[in-house]
Amino acid sequence: MNRFASLAAFEAALDDLPMPDAAAVAAAAARQGQLTKPAGSLGRLEEIALFMAGWQGRAVPAIDRACAAIFAGNHGVAARGVSAFPPEVTAEMVRNFAHGGAAINALAGAAGLDLKVVSLDLDHPTADFTVAPAMTAEELLSALNSGAAIVAEGMDLLVLGEMGIGNSTAAAALCARSFGGTATDWTGPGTGLDAEGVTRKAAVVAAGLAAHADAAVTPVETLRRLGGREIAAIAGAVVTARLMRVPVLLDGFISCAGVAPLAAARPAITGHCLAGHCSAEPGHGRLLARLGLAPLLRLDMRLGEGSGAAVAAQIVRSALAAHAQMATFAEAGVTAG
Amino acid sequence: MNRFASLAAFEAALDDLPMPDAAAVAAAAARQGQLTKPAGSLGRLEEIALFMAGWQGRAVPAIDRACAAIFAGNHGVAARGVSAFPPEVTAEMVRNFAHGGAAINALAGAAGLDLKVVSLDLDHPTADFTVAPAMTAEELLSALNSGAAIVAEGMDLLVLGEMGIGNSTAAAALCARSFGGTATDWTGPGTGLDAEGVTRKAAVVAAGLAAHADAAVTPVETLRRLGGREIAAIAGAVVTARLMRVPVLLDGFISCAGVAPLAAARPAITGHCLAGHCSAEPGHGRLLARLGLAPLLRLDMRLGEGSGAAVAAQIVRSALAAHAQMATFAEAGVTAG
Repeated sequence: MNRFASLAAFEAALDDLPMPDAAAVAAAAARQGQLTKPAGSLGRLEEIALFMAGWQGRAVPAIDRACAAIFAGNHGVAARGVSAFPPEVTAEMVRNFAHGGAAINALAGAAGLDLKVVSLDLDHPTADFTVAPAMTAEELLSALNSGAAIVAEGMDLLVLGEMGIGNSTAAAALCARSFGGTATDWTGPGTGLDAEGVTRKAAVVAAGLAAHADAAVTPVETLRRLGGREIAAIAGAVVTARLMRVPVLLDGFISCAGVAPLAAARPAITGHCLAGHCSAEPGHGRLLARLGLAPLLRLDMRLGEGSGAAVAAQIVRSALAAHAQMATFAEAGVTAG
Repeated sequence: MNRFASLAAFEAALDDLPMPDAAAVAAAAARQGQLTKPAGSLGRLEEIALFMAGWQGRAVPAIDRACAAIFAGNHGVAARGVSAFPPEVTAEMVRNFAHGGAAINALAGAAGLDLKVVSLDLDHPTADFTVAPAMTAEELLSALNSGAAIVAEGMDLLVLGEMGIGNSTAAAALCARSFGGTATDWTGPGTGLDAEGVTRKAAVVAAGLAAHADAAVTPVETLRRLGGREIAAIAGAVVTARLMRVPVLLDGFISCAGVAPLAAARPAITGHCLAGHCSAEPGHGRLLARLGLAPLLRLDMRLGEGSGAAVAAQIVRSALAAHAQMATFAEAGVTAG
């Protein structure tokens, strides 16, 4: 039941990406032009309605079945002191998700999202990428398929998030490898490192980049050498969502870093994605620009777990509510401008 | 049953503004420090939780009773061709609100807000402020009290919005009079004027400012001479909400302009207010800076009707959901960083 039979099949999927339904977009735009408001006055809410129309393939899109999927993984590189929290916190937080006590539980509830938590072999961290590829080919394929498996036919919106102590270090390496720049350009405090910690973390990122400098720069090789299981699962989910025309709401720096190796090779991959927010992690704004995505929110959040995207899901709901429920000028007997 | 017996009583209220409950803020901050997330990682959501705690006077604030109040008024200055829409649209949109067909109906519904629409003597526009004060003292007092009347004991959150063809012209005049700058600095396209229309509108604003240049610059005189009934109602509601410790979510340029004459005299008046969004109307960002408010959203909206604030109410709900529902490190058995 694996979506991708091989890593080659995963990369091949990037060569034949479905595009939005142009007729549905045109019909949604025609509807927007008749609603009782000055043209364009709902700003990005109007853009969101058209985006959702295109991917859902209907002039009046809706959200009846929305899901937040949170992937968790552990990282060998965490042993190098790159996080303010110890590695056991990944599993502890997964238990917290299961018991309903984490931020994403509250925020998914507020936004009406079903929450799925996928724990990826937490007892076996990836290899330390400063000395070896983070994953074998088999491990990467398994992670990609774990991500693919959560995408279901008929999903109206998919929020993608992550948990994994050490994963902002992997994310920084993925971004530098995908889009250039130095380790320092992409390294930030993550969960709360001080300046000395950030310097140490940047050195670890630089060591990882140097260790794999001679490898081919392909989506698969970059994810395998520098990524992590939860990050690869996000990549697998994003590609699968595209194949199934499910619109995606991306979260923070790490979730977006899962898309970076794909977008470096095929910029069109982000066409079915909205950026939920721009986090306080310094590399996130730069990464969003590279992905061609304008964030819906800027609330200085930096938690991960899909938390920023879950808040942004409410903006998407508002956009669709206005699009679906408003009267036209003719229906309401209002004089058009 | 009028809240304010006289205009003098209204201005006197500004001299004795209640402050937030410091003990509740401290208790909320202590709770935030124990929740299962890196300190500060929910960014502005944490600030909102503390703000709401302070005004609701409890460590765990909640929203059980939230209201969006939309005030509508007509403006004599609309006869001068300052809007892309004709003046009869104000009454037509009020009927649209009543029938549930406007953007605010959909957006208030999505955010779980009760909607109250208050129509203020639409058959009698204010006087054209280029030739006379917009309102008599009696008319102003009545509008202030109409705003005051919608604030009820036990409201958890109050969203304030407006509708009134021509009212961005009044708003520009109020801002220039309150905070300085030229008519051009504060004049924008409103519902959709072209460049020539904006130039004509700025000239009308400048004529209004010149006509009242010798008047006293007080909250009451500025509102009376250059404001409108719906704008004064917002001023009355903001002051009354402060007296009753009801937190307020402000909407766009015009709603905020209702606070401008108050804030110019007493900057502390905005202490119980959140700015829901920064609109596409050019003067709004400048006005928010003068009010000392950082907007929650920037979605290029420019509709009024409380629409941006209604969307932002969901951010406030998310903030309170996380604050109330998250487990502490001790409860969840998660290792603190």
